[in-house]
Amino acid sequence: MRFFSDNAAAAHPKVLEAIAAANQVDTAYDGDEWSARLDGAFSDLFGTEVRAFWVTTGTAANCLALATLCPPYRAILCHRDAHIEVDEAGAPGFFTGGAKLVLLEGDGAKVTPGTVTAACDAIRDDVHQVQPAVLSITNATEYGLVYRAAEVTALGNLCRQRGLRLHMDGARLANAVATTGESLADLTWRAGVEALSFGFVKNGGLNAEALILFDTELADEIEVRRKRAGHLLSKGRYLAAQILALLDGDLWLENAQAANAAAQSLVEAASGRLIYRVEANELFLKVSPDEAAQLRSAGFEFNEWGPGQIRLVTSWDQQSADRDRLAAAIRAL
Amino acid sequence: MRFFSDNAAAAHPKVLEAIAAANQVDTAYDGDEWSARLDGAFSDLFGTEVRAFWVTTGTAANCLALATLCPPYRAILCHRDAHIEVDEAGAPGFFTGGAKLVLLEGDGAKVTPGTVTAACDAIRDDVHQVQPAVLSITNATEYGLVYRAAEVTALGNLCRQRGLRLHMDGARLANAVATTGESLADLTWRAGVEALSFGFVKNGGLNAEALILFDTELADEIEVRRKRAGHLLSKGRYLAAQILALLDGDLWLENAQAANAAAQSLVEAASGRLIYRVEANELFLKVSPDEAAQLRSAGFEFNEWGPGQIRLVTSWDQQSADRDRLAAAIRAL
Amino acid sequence: MRFFSDNAAAAHPKVLEAIAAANQVDTAYDGDEWSARLDGAFSDLFGTEVRAFWVTTGTAANCLALATLCPPYRAILCHRDAHIEVDEAGAPGFFTGGAKLVLLEGDGAKVTPGTVTAACDAIRDDVHQVQPAVLSITNATEYGLVYRAAEVTALGNLCRQRGLRLHMDGARLANAVATTGESLADLTWRAGVEALSFGFVKNGGLNAEALILFDTELADEIEVRRKRAGHLLSKGRYLAAQILALLDGDLWLENAQAANAAAQSLVEAASGRLIYRVEANELFLKVSPDEAAQLRSAGFEFNEWGPGQIRLVTSWDQQSADRDRLAAAIRAL
Amino acid sequence: MRFFSDNAAAAHPKVLEAIAAANQVDTAYDGDEWSARLDGAFSDLFGTEVRAFWVTTGTAANCLALATLCPPYRAILCHRDAHIEVDEAGAPGFFTGGAKLVLLEGDGAKVTPGTVTAACDAIRDDVHQVQPAVLSITNATEYGLVYRAAEVTALGNLCRQRGLRLHMDGARLANAVATTGESLADLTWRAGVEALSFGFVKNGGLNAEALILFDTELADEIEVRRKRAGHLLSKGRYLAAQILALLDGDLWLENAQAANAAAQSLVEAASGRLIYRVEANELFLKVSPDEAAQLRSAGFEFNEWGPGQIRLVTSWDQQSADRDRLAAAIRAL
Repeated sequence: MRFFSDNAAAAHPKVLEAIAAANQVDTAYDGDEWSARLDGAFSDLFGTEVRAFWVTTGTAANCLALATLCPPYRAILCHRDAHIEVDEAGAPGFFTGGAKLVLLEGDGAKVTPGTVTAACDAIRDDVHQVQPAVLSITNATEYGLVYRAAEVTALGNLCRQRGLRLHMDGARLANAVATTGESLADLTWRAGVEALSFGFVKNGGLNAEALILFDTELADEIEVRRKRAGHLLSKGRYLAAQILALLDGDLWLENAQAANAAAQSLVEAASGRLIYRVEANELFLKVSPDEAAQLRSAGFEFNEWGPGQIRLVTSWDQQSADRDRLAAAIRAL
Repeated sequence: MRFFSDNAAAAHPKVLEAIAAANQVDTAYDGDEWSARLDGAFSDLFGTEVRAFWVTTGTAANCLALATLCPPYRAILCHRDAHIEVDEAGAPGFFTGGAKLVLLEGDGAKVTPGTVTAACDAIRDDVHQVQPAVLSITNATEYGLVYRAAEVTALGNLCRQRGLRLHMDGARLANAVATTGESLADLTWRAGVEALSFGFVKNGGLNAEALILFDTELADEIEVRRKRAGHLLSKGRYLAAQILALLDGDLWLENAQAANAAAQSLVEAASGRLIYRVEANELFLKVSPDEAAQLRSAGFEFNEWGPGQIRLVTSWDQQSADRDRLAAAIRAL
Repeated sequence: MRFFSDNAAAAHPKVLEAIAAANQVDTAYDGDEWSARLDGAFSDLFGTEVRAFWVTTGTAANCLALATLCPPYRAILCHRDAHIEVDEAGAPGFFTGGAKLVLLEGDGAKVTPGTVTAACDAIRDDVHQVQPAVLSITNATEYGLVYRAAEVTALGNLCRQRGLRLHMDGARLANAVATTGESLADLTWRAGVEALSFGFVKNGGLNAEALILFDTELADEIEVRRKRAGHLLSKGRYLAAQILALLDGDLWLENAQAANAAAQSLVEAASGRLIYRVEANELFLKVSPDEAAQLRSAGFEFNEWGPGQIRLVTSWDQQSADRDRLAAAIRAL
Repeated sequence: MRFFSDNAAAAHPKVLEAIAAANQVDTAYDGDEWSARLDGAFSDLFGTEVRAFWVTTGTAANCLALATLCPPYRAILCHRDAHIEVDEAGAPGFFTGGAKLVLLEGDGAKVTPGTVTAACDAIRDDVHQVQPAVLSITNATEYGLVYRAAEVTALGNLCRQRGLRLHMDGARLANAVATTGESLADLTWRAGVEALSFGFVKNGGLNAEALILFDTELADEIEVRRKRAGHLLSKGRYLAAQILALLDGDLWLENAQAANAAAQSLVEAASGRLIYRVEANELFLKVSPDEAAQLRSAGFEFNEWGPGQIRLVTSWDQQSADRDRLAAAIRAL
């Protein structure tokens, strides 16, 4: 019974149907009719004109955006536990040509206007220190907490004052929308987000992620950088078709709601052990090594997350019987 | 009727079946059982121990290999018309951190020991000039010619003498095998090739290419560079499954034979116009602008390739009726 | 008797005096009073507002400028024999983060609007090919020819039409001014040059070169890039003082006139052997290996420049007796 | 009266004499006789065979070494207050092509085997996290503390165990030698240091620093990287001559002793305010804004170093009268 990553989940059947339906001759790269529909589909979804690009990984989406927002000689502010800092093998350094990540503290991998301000103020404004250019936040965070629209807006306002660009890693943005009930628009561009990595692979996709530009003037550069990084696939229609299938009838939201519900179904059993509030599809629990071994031997798969801590991740296709068994097993510890 | 690119062809039905069969929960990234089978499958295919990595584009396969073979301060020798020079948006410069491409001449995009030697000899051996580190060749070439095993071996021997590493862009290596009847082993590692981009997308794949390392010591670095470039997909099983499906029963070779046969079926009609011998699945024809317009208005799609020249590419799924119509149309010009 | 490089010449006595005069406590980096005078001194010299930066090498001046003018994913057009292509160890690739050099042909290392236009037209305007961003020319060229103001202007106009930035490598710009009698202003910013590497080391300096920005908005980025490349010296006053000494009383022009005159004094003797017109301080001669050996054994030092060719370079401090002896030796071959 | 930086000090008269003595025609770049003597001079000084390179800044020395020791996809461990992290404008990211700095804690900018071990252990050994390759330490540290030979040896041993390379930023290594009385050999290569930035500019030099390789196999790569970074000066003899002058008769040590003595002469007056022990030529004092203003108005120049703290730096040429006046002024606060 798999609780180690939403990356492990299968793709949604409608995604496979869409791939099959796209399996015909068409123009190469992104000249096909599916790719051509992405800008419109996401502009409708976000209620504003956007430019949308398919890529195959969140790392590509994040780092193409960051390279476009941040010159090589400036810095990206992010949380110390941000995916771009701890789980992308230094990709931001590669894509930007050596820009620096300045690491912020904050409970549950959340940053606040206060931590951003303090970090900026600690940088001497001279040629010897690397000046900040971008703030990157993750919603939902790497610890399964969400930023509400008001929180993003406060960060967006600060960025505007400080001359920072604002990037959002939305690998689990769908989960944040499902939790907050706030609109995609309010959580992103209305709050000041200029480029968004919008995750689909963890949420029922097969291998397509979306990079959304609210600052549409960045699009030409992204187009070139995507090709230059080897991320312009020859047959893009199979990526675009996946995304369109997940947008159709708000399947993306339905999947996220299912994953979140699966997480919530474990909260009560885990309540004494929870390290963070459960606001998306992840639970972080205090569990002794013995207890962890016990869970494993009962057939549950999950990752350790620091000493005495484990991470449980639920997916859009999590089986209710598995959840019930896990809840029982946790209670029984 | 599409003759502009083998990238435009559909994926083979068995590739879609394989993706569907892989659509289940499994370990993320490349920890799944399909990915685990790649090394063995390619080692069997090549008759030697190799390390094999899925990626989604030929550009990624080429440039990950080149970055591992060539330090940022050295040069890659390649033909002036090589894909890495003219069609990858400068990706080699990005992946290597600024290595230089030194461009070689040669009919039909082929290089010879003579051109390689001359290029090396023209570089002063001092700190002011960029010293060569790698030779990259493409088989079949960008003009649809093939290197025979003896030709690759001659280049491989020269590379050994000169201290150069040897990379092969095999986006259409399957077509070269189909034409020459020579073995994959003879065309690659036995001839001195150390890293190979083995193309599947143009040959019935959906979005999986393979990077094959004959120098298996490069594998650790490739693994890191792949992740760092955003090319480690979260659900790698869908890529590995595609490749395994194309290897199964030598479907890759069958597809290439079909594409080559389609090209040959046009040769007679085009014979007076051919710029290069037809040795793979591409034909380059002398055609006046008026004639080109005539073909287009008859429903044939293709690309111009310099003034007064057009390129026709056939695919594994080319319809024989379309080919016959095109042959007739060319004859009628 | 040294004719192999103007880099080998001594520094002018006034330069050493200026260094000694600056040998006192002052602010570090470029906060000192000598550095503070550079912008004004060069603005006066060029008759327009400029920003001026000391660096220690022409490579640094060239590549800091190019990195600021050219994004990593675009190309710099330059002559095939340009110093940035053949003698800077790939520094443009390093500083820009992988931008491409597109090489132009042209007699004597000169480019023309025609060659630039042809090179631009040969680049397909799509995402697969690297689009040009900058034209870099060298005046005087690597073969000792000069661009007149009208020639630079024609290139500048073309650049404006094509959306290209214009950089000049002026390692020997002083020699070009001395030859043409045209003003620095006419040869640079009035003709469309936006950034200039202005050479002093070959012309009496010790180790200070100047990077001049006519587009003063580039200055902030140059300042950061200079530091980031390790080119912001701790005690910049010793560089600024050198440059100010060479500007004082137009010593730079006087030195260049002396070097040019030394070259001209050899022209008659070499006339039957000259490969290029002598327009600066360099002579390229057809000389057989035997003849070259004869000159060497007579005590003359110089470099071979391709088979059967030698390069002679004169300096600001060339001794007239040495020149006379060399002229006689050439005549005697 | 200047106490803000040893970079502000004048060059030693013997350095200027050496420059004047080198002011003659010689071979360009590093082909001259002064440069040729560097390897031997430093091999004698360190008591082992080394390769020595002149550069003009500590940033260049540090980052050329780091780029050679650390692949772009790995990490450099250093103290959070290390010069390479806080005062080099991100140069390590530029020179390495995007390697990461992992920041260590430690009082007075010193790292210990414990902090290094903890940092390494915190990095998951997989492809998603950036693996460490180099430890860089600064001696004397940025807060004027010194590592004894035994401390460096402990770090060197740990590096060997962990497969890390060891780099030392020795911008003020002379001061550390003067303080500890330990030999250069014991403080560097015998302790495991493989590459050393040996500072001369802060210690009586004009604009020459030395990069010393104890792992002499790195030399070829350093040579190319130095050129490629624009740091191969055309007239290197003026740099080599400076360094040789400072080595001659151990002038470098004499200068450092003078600077250290100047610092010690202030210790008693400052004793109640000292934040760190004074082990080199820097004092960090707790001083209120009012008190700082008082000192400034009395003619003393210095930098603030965080709120309520000031930094005083003494130089080889510090005037005893100035020191006495400053001591008195501090006492009088």
